[in-house]
Amino acid sequence: MSAKVTVAVAGATGYTGIELVRLLAQHPFVSLEILASQSYAGQPLHRVYPHLLPYVGQTLSPQEIEQLLAAEVIFLALPHGHAAPVVEAALAAGRRVVDLGADFRLADPDSYRRWYGLEPPAAALVQQAVYGLPELYREKIRGAAVVANPGCYPTATLLALAPALRLGLVEADDIIIDAKSGVTGAGRSLNLATLYGEVNEGLHPYNVAGHRHTPEIEQELSKLCGRPVRVTFTPHLAPMSRGILSTVYARLAPGVTVEAIRRAYEEAYRGEPFVHVLPPGTWPHTKWVYGSNHCLLSLAVDERTGRLVIASAIDNLVKGASGQAVQNLNLMYGWEETTALGAAPLYP
Amino acid sequence: MSAKVTVAVAGATGYTGIELVRLLAQHPFVSLEILASQSYAGQPLHRVYPHLLPYVGQTLSPQEIEQLLAAEVIFLALPHGHAAPVVEAALAAGRRVVDLGADFRLADPDSYRRWYGLEPPAAALVQQAVYGLPELYREKIRGAAVVANPGCYPTATLLALAPALRLGLVEADDIIIDAKSGVTGAGRSLNLATLYGEVNEGLHPYNVAGHRHTPEIEQELSKLCGRPVRVTFTPHLAPMSRGILSTVYARLAPGVTVEAIRRAYEEAYRGEPFVHVLPPGTWPHTKWVYGSNHCLLSLAVDERTGRLVIASAIDNLVKGASGQAVQNLNLMYGWEETTALGAAPLYP
Amino acid sequence: MSAKVTVAVAGATGYTGIELVRLLAQHPFVSLEILASQSYAGQPLHRVYPHLLPYVGQTLSPQEIEQLLAAEVIFLALPHGHAAPVVEAALAAGRRVVDLGADFRLADPDSYRRWYGLEPPAAALVQQAVYGLPELYREKIRGAAVVANPGCYPTATLLALAPALRLGLVEADDIIIDAKSGVTGAGRSLNLATLYGEVNEGLHPYNVAGHRHTPEIEQELSKLCGRPVRVTFTPHLAPMSRGILSTVYARLAPGVTVEAIRRAYEEAYRGEPFVHVLPPGTWPHTKWVYGSNHCLLSLAVDERTGRLVIASAIDNLVKGASGQAVQNLNLMYGWEETTALGAAPLYP
Amino acid sequence: MSAKVTVAVAGATGYTGIELVRLLAQHPFVSLEILASQSYAGQPLHRVYPHLLPYVGQTLSPQEIEQLLAAEVIFLALPHGHAAPVVEAALAAGRRVVDLGADFRLADPDSYRRWYGLEPPAAALVQQAVYGLPELYREKIRGAAVVANPGCYPTATLLALAPALRLGLVEADDIIIDAKSGVTGAGRSLNLATLYGEVNEGLHPYNVAGHRHTPEIEQELSKLCGRPVRVTFTPHLAPMSRGILSTVYARLAPGVTVEAIRRAYEEAYRGEPFVHVLPPGTWPHTKWVYGSNHCLLSLAVDERTGRLVIASAIDNLVKGASGQAVQNLNLMYGWEETTALGAAPLYP
Repeated sequence: MSAKVTVAVAGATGYTGIELVRLLAQHPFVSLEILASQSYAGQPLHRVYPHLLPYVGQTLSPQEIEQLLAAEVIFLALPHGHAAPVVEAALAAGRRVVDLGADFRLADPDSYRRWYGLEPPAAALVQQAVYGLPELYREKIRGAAVVANPGCYPTATLLALAPALRLGLVEADDIIIDAKSGVTGAGRSLNLATLYGEVNEGLHPYNVAGHRHTPEIEQELSKLCGRPVRVTFTPHLAPMSRGILSTVYARLAPGVTVEAIRRAYEEAYRGEPFVHVLPPGTWPHTKWVYGSNHCLLSLAVDERTGRLVIASAIDNLVKGASGQAVQNLNLMYGWEETTALGAAPLYP
Repeated sequence: MSAKVTVAVAGATGYTGIELVRLLAQHPFVSLEILASQSYAGQPLHRVYPHLLPYVGQTLSPQEIEQLLAAEVIFLALPHGHAAPVVEAALAAGRRVVDLGADFRLADPDSYRRWYGLEPPAAALVQQAVYGLPELYREKIRGAAVVANPGCYPTATLLALAPALRLGLVEADDIIIDAKSGVTGAGRSLNLATLYGEVNEGLHPYNVAGHRHTPEIEQELSKLCGRPVRVTFTPHLAPMSRGILSTVYARLAPGVTVEAIRRAYEEAYRGEPFVHVLPPGTWPHTKWVYGSNHCLLSLAVDERTGRLVIASAIDNLVKGASGQAVQNLNLMYGWEETTALGAAPLYP
Repeated sequence: MSAKVTVAVAGATGYTGIELVRLLAQHPFVSLEILASQSYAGQPLHRVYPHLLPYVGQTLSPQEIEQLLAAEVIFLALPHGHAAPVVEAALAAGRRVVDLGADFRLADPDSYRRWYGLEPPAAALVQQAVYGLPELYREKIRGAAVVANPGCYPTATLLALAPALRLGLVEADDIIIDAKSGVTGAGRSLNLATLYGEVNEGLHPYNVAGHRHTPEIEQELSKLCGRPVRVTFTPHLAPMSRGILSTVYARLAPGVTVEAIRRAYEEAYRGEPFVHVLPPGTWPHTKWVYGSNHCLLSLAVDERTGRLVIASAIDNLVKGASGQAVQNLNLMYGWEETTALGAAPLYP
Repeated sequence: MSAKVTVAVAGATGYTGIELVRLLAQHPFVSLEILASQSYAGQPLHRVYPHLLPYVGQTLSPQEIEQLLAAEVIFLALPHGHAAPVVEAALAAGRRVVDLGADFRLADPDSYRRWYGLEPPAAALVQQAVYGLPELYREKIRGAAVVANPGCYPTATLLALAPALRLGLVEADDIIIDAKSGVTGAGRSLNLATLYGEVNEGLHPYNVAGHRHTPEIEQELSKLCGRPVRVTFTPHLAPMSRGILSTVYARLAPGVTVEAIRRAYEEAYRGEPFVHVLPPGTWPHTKWVYGSNHCLLSLAVDERTGRLVIASAIDNLVKGASGQAVQNLNLMYGWEETTALGAAPLYP
């Protein structure tokens, strides 16, 4: 039996980081070597997150590049703009990186500048990154040194649209994405807007016509259909901890039937361990993927308007972030893709 | 000082009914004469709803037409298909009716048949009904003998679209309505789908391309712009008790600017006591109207796609049902329109 | 018609403050003169709390004593330790004060020092304060220049225990209080513990054997029975915005029957507008007082152990804070005690 | 490698049943042979519970004894009063049973009659049942043919009290249990009281001085200390799906210190895979055990009153029901006790 692969997690005490720790702590081929945290370095992890008391004994390390390089794989769960120096050092040292932030997702540096208001990482670095949506880029991910793990909204939305766009079944210039997310997507930093008193019993749109996941969605849709795509994307905050539902509206291409669409989706996702097309008339509940790496899809054509409606549900912290990161890790090391991701959703 | 107007509420123990009782119990010009309930007749109301113990002493009556006619105004909060006989008897007896159900909302009997699967009330009756959205039909409501109180989704959506459609500022044939509702919209009847365990921490679409509020929305939009309108309408269930957010997408008519749109909305709702256009960049939270009769609107143009996004928030039980019914009552009797509806939203 | 009484609210943008603003904005005899806020001075209130857009047009003032003194009555919704200078200046200027904080609640300065870790206000000031629980001190409140508005847990708990202790129906030395509160009791300041992600779907005790409301409860219980009382008090945080349920356990005094207890409670609260004893077998839900100034009580004797169980439910922001402050104001000015407090609970 | 053990689950579509299916579907030594359901027999399980679509392909069987006997182990997740005939047939056929209902928990038939209002199973059957709390009866469970899986409140409460009672560290005649439960404890049957609209944003006691888990708690506490114990037990419903927090109050026996208590608890649970004593000052959140089989305990002495406070948190559907059933199965078959129960809690 070969030795386990050592991993480091930077940003281990954010919601994305801790979900990664939860999954990796139960991964049979992985050894959690370094858990780094800016805010809590020096404390045992279970002092910060007592739910992991029976699972993780480590003390949190300071978030320094040198330390992170001690591991073979480095997961970055950091705020935007912090990944580049770690990635650079990691590549130089022959390490592999899965970046859960946005810094390596956009191939176009101007787009990154415009949407994130930051200087992008060096082009030479960005070019080495593979966009880590396994259902689209499985082969490339296997060999990647740097994986740019997709955003939560893009994950749900791209899985909803990929088969239709790739096959030209819908018009590419008339796509509307109305997405609803649980609160953990906003992270654990102190923020008036995520206080219980502000969120509970309320629902609202935010960043209308300006959310940073827009260019990421457009970049990938454009690649799928071979020409520039512009979408209208409206995210909403819903009073729940986990879950994203992306409801997508598109106009059918001439002559396309709902049966053709359905067949295309079933074929596209046949054999996928984590993407499932529900039977006609059954629409996904975010609750049905709670705590799991699955994505549930359903679709229908509104016969009266000729418009296709697709709904896609994921757990934003799992398939939308940390579960997908582990799925990418599994691909990078040639392990069974579902390793450590087999847990069924928790319901109710 | 003139005597109070006597009112009856049929279906007083459903969620819509009890919200009506809450509001009417505090109405200075109204005397709650008859509270009728099929399930709980003979019991004091506060046995069923202890929160009204300090407010309502009445015992629930059986739901019989004769009894209801003892009041001057009859509110019907009944399941679809039950209003016609009461309305007929009420009109014959010179009573006035506010029907919170759907039976009198659709002018086209075929549409009612198709969407509700029931035989509509006699055309002669339906023609006497006024669609009770005060912001559109204030004058007609004043003189109405029968008011068809709008559905919750139509209320939020029509207020979001009326100014734009009336003035031709958007294309009428490309409208998408993505709406999210709290659970009380589904009523209080026993239903697996509304158990706490099924709803909490989950969000999902339902009745996709088939919700019964679709023809109601289309009827009113068509009247506003003078030609048939078809919309794609997708309702979602969100894990909260109250609130509807309707997010509406429409394509701007050629040459229309966001400033023109904004001006049109501000003008349309200037002086309206219950409809408010928020400043640019502030998007409505359903929580901001919790327990009140207000509707908050905001809008923006997605410059990249030329699409208009409008969001509209109401409390489904107040402006979306019982508060609007009281607003209609106030109009019918020439009282100040805000009477008994002045309470500020409860926040947080 | 005499002019309205002018009032100032210091700390207007906290949860307690804004609830006070909501109630006072609808008070017929009051003019909201000054809304002061440390964090948001200079902004219109409705920029901070858009739900009050249709109700309050004022701009927030800086929180300076001079400004507050412009009003006849000053409400203080400040963190502990900040009330004394305002109260001193207010008394000197002939103003009246309702302090929603804890600084004037404890008559014993050592107790204040020990539990709050601060130097108490001058004894001469504290002695002028009346403990503002109207059901116990109605007459004194009428004439008070300074009212120390009770804490939320003490309000629910004292109303649950007062009749029994005053009449010696339970043993005073064996009282356990297990209380559960919604999250708004913790205020609106940024706090990891009140993030939605931390609170939702969880329940936990906190400050076990050390909560600052303990000496306040003991002081009042001791006055009621005429000798020192010590209680075990355990507060819990529950995943809801509003509401306190206080479950109280006490041992019956020898010879006391449940009927005697029930009679005593019914008599004690007969005619009270805001305290209601529920019929046997009906236990209070916090939801039944949501948004209202009511307190619902129920009690039973566990025949197998001879122990009395009393449950008491209030809305922590209304009867537990701002509603009670308005009730005190009404008493201070000789107005009907229920003025501006008549709104029925919001349900569901 | 030996063949898997075949199991049947009766009542597979209730909340307890489906949680059992979730856990057993991922058990490496078990083959899910029969999933029986009264309401949904003949349908694929994933039609009823789509979240298990990627996990369970079986069709639901009718709930008939003959069918259940086809498996080696039969789990019963049935309403009270239904277990006896199955257990009798199972024993006759050499099968083993884990009963998640209450029918075999009470050794005293009169107690069963009084609290459940039903005739108990034959004494000869009841005597063969072992009370399935592994931390107390591990050895007996290994050899048991019938395991009476404990109730959710008793599990949390007995783990909180066992060390203290066994060692006589607290007075046995002065114990108060104030417990708070999530809603799934009430099951999935249609019930007005568990509708979202009734539960959300509310908290209330129920079955005060009369909950059926009282005699179960008392039976076990009495065995632990060797004399009859009577407790005051008050359950509350909290607005959350999962979780029980049991807050227990007891009087210290003369001369006992908090250090002694703490030492006793740490010793009692050292090495237990699922019971953990938190460090002083850290109190359990139900959220910290969400979806896991753990029990977290904390304790303190209120020095001012000499009373011990213990808090105990479990997930009612896992350690409080189905997880404990799997733990018992593991013991019965000599497998590692944590098999299929290793998943870390889901947080947030």
